[in-house]
Amino acid sequence: MVFQKDQVRGKLIAVEGLDGSGKSTQIALLKRWLELESCKVVFTEWNSSDLVKSATRRGKKQRLLTPTTFSLIHATDFADRYERQIMPLLRAGYLVLADRYVYTAYARDAVRGCDREWVQSLYSFARQPDITYYFEVPLQVALDRILSGRPQLKFHEAGMDLDLSEDPTESFRIFQGMILEEYERQKKQFGFCVIDGSDLPENQQARMRAALTDRIDLSHYRRKTKVIREGYGKEVLR
Amino acid sequence: MVFQKDQVRGKLIAVEGLDGSGKSTQIALLKRWLELESCKVVFTEWNSSDLVKSATRRGKKQRLLTPTTFSLIHATDFADRYERQIMPLLRAGYLVLADRYVYTAYARDAVRGCDREWVQSLYSFARQPDITYYFEVPLQVALDRILSGRPQLKFHEAGMDLDLSEDPTESFRIFQGMILEEYERQKKQFGFCVIDGSDLPENQQARMRAALTDRIDLSHYRRKTKVIREGYGKEVLR
Repeated sequence: MVFQKDQVRGKLIAVEGLDGSGKSTQIALLKRWLELESCKVVFTEWNSSDLVKSATRRGKKQRLLTPTTFSLIHATDFADRYERQIMPLLRAGYLVLADRYVYTAYARDAVRGCDREWVQSLYSFARQPDITYYFEVPLQVALDRILSGRPQLKFHEAGMDLDLSEDPTESFRIFQGMILEEYERQKKQFGFCVIDGSDLPENQQARMRAALTDRIDLSHYRRKTKVIREGYGKEVLR
Repeated sequence: MVFQKDQVRGKLIAVEGLDGSGKSTQIALLKRWLELESCKVVFTEWNSSDLVKSATRRGKKQRLLTPTTFSLIHATDFADRYERQIMPLLRAGYLVLADRYVYTAYARDAVRGCDREWVQSLYSFARQPDITYYFEVPLQVALDRILSGRPQLKFHEAGMDLDLSEDPTESFRIFQGMILEEYERQKKQFGFCVIDGSDLPENQQARMRAALTDRIDLSHYRRKTKVIREGYGKEVLR
């Protein structure tokens, strides 16, 4: 059992890809479009639950975590958010847009040395998305987008726990390369809808919308009241 | 993959059974005996790690936890203890005595509605014990031992989250009966060494020691220095 199969009225739409692949921008644009189409839509991000945040923070800081514990803490965090936020909204008939989903965990945990089947089984309480957009970009493009801002990379974000390099930037490069390999492996297994993240942003968005309307009948998700543009881009519910 | 199979020098010995089955007394006696046999032995209890204790407490208090989240929090707690305490001791060649092990989680989580296979896979990072003693007592005997002390049963301890009864004592009775059914189911599947928890304590202990020496050559676990009784039961390392 890799995914939960309960029937729900809503639809789950996920984006996956490397940091710097452009997925977050594109999902924000998709959300805006769906709102203007008067659809019931909500957005959710990876790793935003409060319940175990303190435990994760504390463990990360003390660098005490093994790959298994690290994986389980994130799974707990996700499960809490999934069951108290995502599932109720899906049951209530919403289009739920997720910036990163279980595939992010599959990739990160596998790179850290967890057994792939174990991780997939761990997350099997969650539904498979109705569409998973995978933003494919060459590694160097994604790295350039992130590293050009000269960011202060965090310990785990840079994959420093993997002892790949003592230099955080170099560690991040190697780590992202390993994540990319995991995504490539997943791409076929899970039937991702591949978006070329090097293409023009408007082309990416057009492709996302086409794939969405192809698979989901939006008329089932429209509010009875309509969002109407009024004057200078203001919108009101009618 | 239900259990991890890495080779280690140490041995893992677990006790399982209902609250009130007498297992904790018997494992304490076994530990004392092994110490007097000059063996390298340590004791570990279920649910004693600090890492996610605050999360568990907070979640329990707010009664926010679904069965999946509840299960994952306990698995995280156990994984932390397992990888930072149990495994290093097993690698270092200790006899590790565990008061409750993954079977406790299998039973509790199944009763709360988690899929049995999912829970077993969740804990598959852990080793199967070299011996698991299962303390079998009639439900009423175990209940009488616990309830005669007129305890203040805690919310989850009494299984109140399962809505079995509004009365904590009655809820506890039903809950323990359900746990017992899970243990009975596990008994054969995992080849427990069954101890009759209604028998005389000295007979139980004798049976445990016989099963232990039958399966484990204690000479591999003896310290080079000996613990010697001196005077009024004092012991010193020589």
